Amino acid sequence: YDYDGPLMKTTVPGPRSQELTKQLGDIQNVGAVNFFCNYEDSRGNYLVDVDGNRMLDIYTQISSIPIGYNHPALLKLMTNPNNLSTFVNRPALGILPPENFPDKITESLLSIAPSGMTRVQTMACGSCANENAFKSIFIWYRNKERGHNTPSEEELTTCMTNQAPGCPDLSILSFMGGFHGRTLGCLATTHSKVIHKLDVPSFDWPVAPFPRLKYPLEEFSRENAQEEARCLEEVVEDLIVKWRQKGKPVAGIIIEPIQAEGGDNHASPDFFRNLRNISRKHGCAFHVDEVQTGGGCTGKFWAHEHWGMDDPAEIVSFSKKLLTGGYYQKDELQADKPYRIFNTWMGDPSKNLFLVEVLNVIRRENLLEEVTRSGKALLNGLYELQAQYPGLLSRARGQGTFCAIDVRDAATRDRLLLQARDKGMLLGGCGDQSIRFRPALVFKEYHVHIFLNIFNDVLAQN
Amino acid sequence: YDYDGPLMKTTVPGPRSQELTKQLGDIQNVGAVNFFCNYEDSRGNYLVDVDGNRMLDIYTQISSIPIGYNHPALLKLMTNPNNLSTFVNRPALGILPPENFPDKITESLLSIAPSGMTRVQTMACGSCANENAFKSIFIWYRNKERGHNTPSEEELTTCMTNQAPGCPDLSILSFMGGFHGRTLGCLATTHSKVIHKLDVPSFDWPVAPFPRLKYPLEEFSRENAQEEARCLEEVVEDLIVKWRQKGKPVAGIIIEPIQAEGGDNHASPDFFRNLRNISRKHGCAFHVDEVQTGGGCTGKFWAHEHWGMDDPAEIVSFSKKLLTGGYYQKDELQADKPYRIFNTWMGDPSKNLFLVEVLNVIRRENLLEEVTRSGKALLNGLYELQAQYPGLLSRARGQGTFCAIDVRDAATRDRLLLQARDKGMLLGGCGDQSIRFRPALVFKEYHVHIFLNIFNDVLAQN
Ligand code: FES
Repeated sequence: YDYDGPLMKTTVPGPRSQELTKQLGDIQNVGAVNFFCNYEDSRGNYLVDVDGNRMLDIYTQISSIPIGYNHPALLKLMTNPNNLSTFVNRPALGILPPENFPDKITESLLSIAPSGMTRVQTMACGSCANENAFKSIFIWYRNKERGHNTPSEEELTTCMTNQAPGCPDLSILSFMGGFHGRTLGCLATTHSKVIHKLDVPSFDWPVAPFPRLKYPLEEFSRENAQEEARCLEEVVEDLIVKWRQKGKPVAGIIIEPIQAEGGDNHASPDFFRNLRNISRKHGCAFHVDEVQTGGGCTGKFWAHEHWGMDDPAEIVSFSKKLLTGGYYQKDELQADKPYRIFNTWMGDPSKNLFLVEVLNVIRRENLLEEVTRSGKALLNGLYELQAQYPGLLSRARGQGTFCAIDVRDAATRDRLLLQARDKGMLLGGCGDQSIRFRPALVFKEYHVHIFLNIFNDVLAQN
Repeated sequence: YDYDGPLMKTTVPGPRSQELTKQLGDIQNVGAVNFFCNYEDSRGNYLVDVDGNRMLDIYTQISSIPIGYNHPALLKLMTNPNNLSTFVNRPALGILPPENFPDKITESLLSIAPSGMTRVQTMACGSCANENAFKSIFIWYRNKERGHNTPSEEELTTCMTNQAPGCPDLSILSFMGGFHGRTLGCLATTHSKVIHKLDVPSFDWPVAPFPRLKYPLEEFSRENAQEEARCLEEVVEDLIVKWRQKGKPVAGIIIEPIQAEGGDNHASPDFFRNLRNISRKHGCAFHVDEVQTGGGCTGKFWAHEHWGMDDPAEIVSFSKKLLTGGYYQKDELQADKPYRIFNTWMGDPSKNLFLVEVLNVIRRENLLEEVTRSGKALLNGLYELQAQYPGLLSRARGQGTFCAIDVRDAATRDRLLLQARDKGMLLGGCGDQSIRFRPALVFKEYHVHIFLNIFNDVLAQN
């Protein structure tokens, strides 16, 4: 059901997109709008815009479309009359779940649970997933500090006006370059771009450097291992001790398996295993944020599976390609009382319905193998291009189709993105000067070749 | 299409609900689960559970179902093939909106915009609505303080590690008893129950007392006016000055038109008008949180319309019965640059589709008038019951069907709720000892009488 290639009728944004952008500009800030889309006509890997341009989509709505546009399996689900009421009646899941909720969760989220985890909490997006995961961590940590879960009279009173000890000075350690969302709790752990953080009050929480590795990783393993050790031993452990001394103990450590928004920064399985050990040693919860890396794009369902650990984390959060937000947790992280982790909707069962189908398609069509295959072709192609254009491209890197490459400078990167778009290639930037590749799981090897051919033309112009 | 009354087959939760609760208990904390629902068979004002019990629903999924279950207009929308792709392809609205997005927003959210507001930002829930509204307020306030919108080098550097001046020590003033959500920013302005706040780090932001009025308001207007003046003049202005002196200026004031979760606490239009003036005088943004009060349940579309002001606020946030979250803002509150207020989804167009239909039904069926009529019957009925059971009930109060009544003590309140449920009446609690009424807008006068009859029976037993 896929189209057979890009087809461009205008430069992008075309006249109709420009008109709509003007209309929307009276209602909202439209500075980030790329163009307007015709989602009815979009199919598979191709996004069609309102001017009739058809683009190969390697950005997929900021990495959130799992199996392409208008997948027949998802359309079919919509025509089943038994499913209608799930869309029409959104329940307050925490108090009045629908009959099929335990089964749908078991069929979907539990069937892909990370090693060691049997509990999952749905939420509506990546931000409320991380915010509530932090709350679970804080509650768990305080109960551990207390040695029991009965708060003192003073805690009960002070918490109502935001004061300690009821609202304790606990912290979450995060990494420079990390991105974990933009609500105020999440934002205190996000350090990817100034524009996300400027002017917003925050918490005094510790920020560790993320190792800056050399690519391809296999070629620089000794230097990279030194850089990783420097970050862990000299800095992370130091920060944990320092913040404890400051009276703001580190209750949890949050990290992405690959820093995405911050520029596609990788680290080795060893780095993550050592960090996991440090978290254990200091009694901090280890929270792996798989909002962008989860869902199969690295060739395994979760990127942390590449670390090969039985007990990878206390918490794994997700959203985007999983369609629903949420997080898995180890039993002991489950909040001790109801209504501590709670909100009106607690997710959306209509998204769980879609997720069941998405997982069926992933299994039926062996999409993780496809991703591994396409990813290899993509990364090899990028290696060749950077050999061919050494002044322009560098640091090609990736796992599965979750790839990136650096461009000489930000201005050139931005120009390349626009030139590629006018030739029917939709790509995204990340970090200061990187291009990130975030195709859907149905991006096959021949799509890679369509991309490489056109991208080669673009590079030849520069 | 409504049923003609409650029909009970078992006590609640029945055996099937208990079985499912046990099943879900292996995956999640189920302490808050009331029972499991059969949403297919639920209709209009009646919620059907998995044991075949049919209850008159006066709580409506924590006040989030606008026009009852399985409304034909919403089911019809689902069968229109033109709408399918909106459900199947969730876009990143901030960068790639669908063609009909400006029209749908104009037809829906802008057609009900609060006085003085022409700009609206959709979000996915009430928490991200409030979190992002706070960010808009902080950005606006800092640009006002600077006198321009070019940050200094020091601001650019410090914000990346959460430090001032880049992440400034600004605050939001809120009221004791208020509820504005549970993510860390929102939670710093929420002060309704200990269980929401305990063990979660927070911001040192000022909390003012909310007036504690006597009901019926008309009978105690002099005393109530004194109580309101005390809160405003003695405390709110004082706090604003004090926090400015502390170096944590109050950038905004957030308040609900009726404190809902905190116990259905009302204040007079005068109180809000005076508070609005104080916010103006001190240069703080005034943020009215209509997440629970908005959507017509008070007899006007927005509860703040009862204040009769042309310029009621800088920001009005919404969610729940509006199906999508979001906030309206005055032009000057719009963030100055793209990507400052941003996330992957920025709402969900499939919810906007439903909202268009909900608004059509509200207009076609004159539901605001119905709410006013039912609300009058409900409040009069509550007055009669509290006259009849003075040892048990007191403080009946309400606007439209947004009503509440206090019960002798928390234990009795909780018992009444369960007894009413076993007779087919689904009600919710709020505050320490109140019952809150939150029917859908299709709750007619005859539903009020069904409720009053059965509730009378319950009270007679106690
Ligand atoms: S914070 Fe996640 S949907 Fe609102």
